[in-house]
Amino acid sequence: MEKNTKLEKFSVEKQTDRGENLPDLYWNLGIPQKGEKLVIHPPKILETRVVFESRKLKVIEQDLEFSNGYRETWEYVELKSKGGVQVMPLKSDGKVVMVREYRGAAQRYVLRFPTGSLEGEESPEQAALRELREETGYTARRLHLLKEQRSSSTYFRGVFSIYLALDLEFVGCRRDLGECDMEVLELPLEEVFGMALRLEIESPQTVYSILMLHHYQQQRKSFL
Amino acid sequence: MEKNTKLEKFSVEKQTDRGENLPDLYWNLGIPQKGEKLVIHPPKILETRVVFESRKLKVIEQDLEFSNGYRETWEYVELKSKGGVQVMPLKSDGKVVMVREYRGAAQRYVLRFPTGSLEGEESPEQAALRELREETGYTARRLHLLKEQRSSSTYFRGVFSIYLALDLEFVGCRRDLGECDMEVLELPLEEVFGMALRLEIESPQTVYSILMLHHYQQQRKSFL
Repeated sequence: MEKNTKLEKFSVEKQTDRGENLPDLYWNLGIPQKGEKLVIHPPKILETRVVFESRKLKVIEQDLEFSNGYRETWEYVELKSKGGVQVMPLKSDGKVVMVREYRGAAQRYVLRFPTGSLEGEESPEQAALRELREETGYTARRLHLLKEQRSSSTYFRGVFSIYLALDLEFVGCRRDLGECDMEVLELPLEEVFGMALRLEIESPQTVYSILMLHHYQQQRKSFL
Repeated sequence: MEKNTKLEKFSVEKQTDRGENLPDLYWNLGIPQKGEKLVIHPPKILETRVVFESRKLKVIEQDLEFSNGYRETWEYVELKSKGGVQVMPLKSDGKVVMVREYRGAAQRYVLRFPTGSLEGEESPEQAALRELREETGYTARRLHLLKEQRSSSTYFRGVFSIYLALDLEFVGCRRDLGECDMEVLELPLEEVFGMALRLEIESPQTVYSILMLHHYQQQRKSFL
């Protein structure tokens, strides 16, 4: 029996430095048993304000009230585009097409899948095909939405549609001018999966997507 | 032989909608051969400006010049804290300690490792021990830096130190008031690794960290 079982509760020391006189609070430190339903209490959103807006980003402030009555203001960043797409192109020979590209925020080159934001009125599918064409020179006759991912990062909100692209045809490249140093690599999926497990790929999102692709290939070999 | 071999080059259609008269540009779409060194040309940073600053965030604009002479302004967001920490607490019985917490940017609860920002003048190690104590009630007698991760996200920059915490002792919880609904879970590492491979954990950063922990355990059983 661990010390922090379901039933044990702990008094919490006051963390506020505003000198508030708060009631004693108790936390459930339990490990949910199999099949047990979690009781969760999302905070109430009291107010949402846009405090900065630029060409691509919005900074948002949000006043929250937690289930214990505690109020806090959180900040996060939202992309102004309607969403982002990531495309995982899988060739019939089992190779995945990836790109190596300079990323400003990371200040280095990263290995990743073709990725971009929705432009104008285009749908996520149209954006996926456009980014695939621009970055790798391939088009795809089949596109499957594998996942719609909402950011789980602490400070970033966005909807990100992840596609599997099949039945590829190489038609030539059409790139943004800021992508001139991007390189296209074709690698066997099993090799890429091994690279992910051996931590040879640094981007958490890319690693996650590789696991997703591998998982789907394991689950339904038929989609090839 | 793939169509997009090392030697084939493609003329690129003009992507600018500003009507600029640009020279024809050529891209290398090569797949690097084994052992071949990549020739990469990071863009020159011409100017960096802070365009917004709040309690926790800065929005930065950066003028870049790519190796083909093309200039572009990029935006990204930087945390004002000196860095973030993530702690992976591994108990001697092979269980990892995780938390389930509400994240404002995701607008839902996520399963993750104790995580936070450096406060005041504290070192990453001090922040790691503080977050571990606050969020799980554990202290650790051994702390190993597994990785210093620079964000590879397109729009977010930050340094994130990832620690392995060993020789744990439960001493009781001490939490921020906004963390009242956080739940502590203790799960066998092998089970957590399986959850990651089966895509039962949604946060890419958490999945990446689980792979890292599993990889290290495979590589050096001795560290337990």
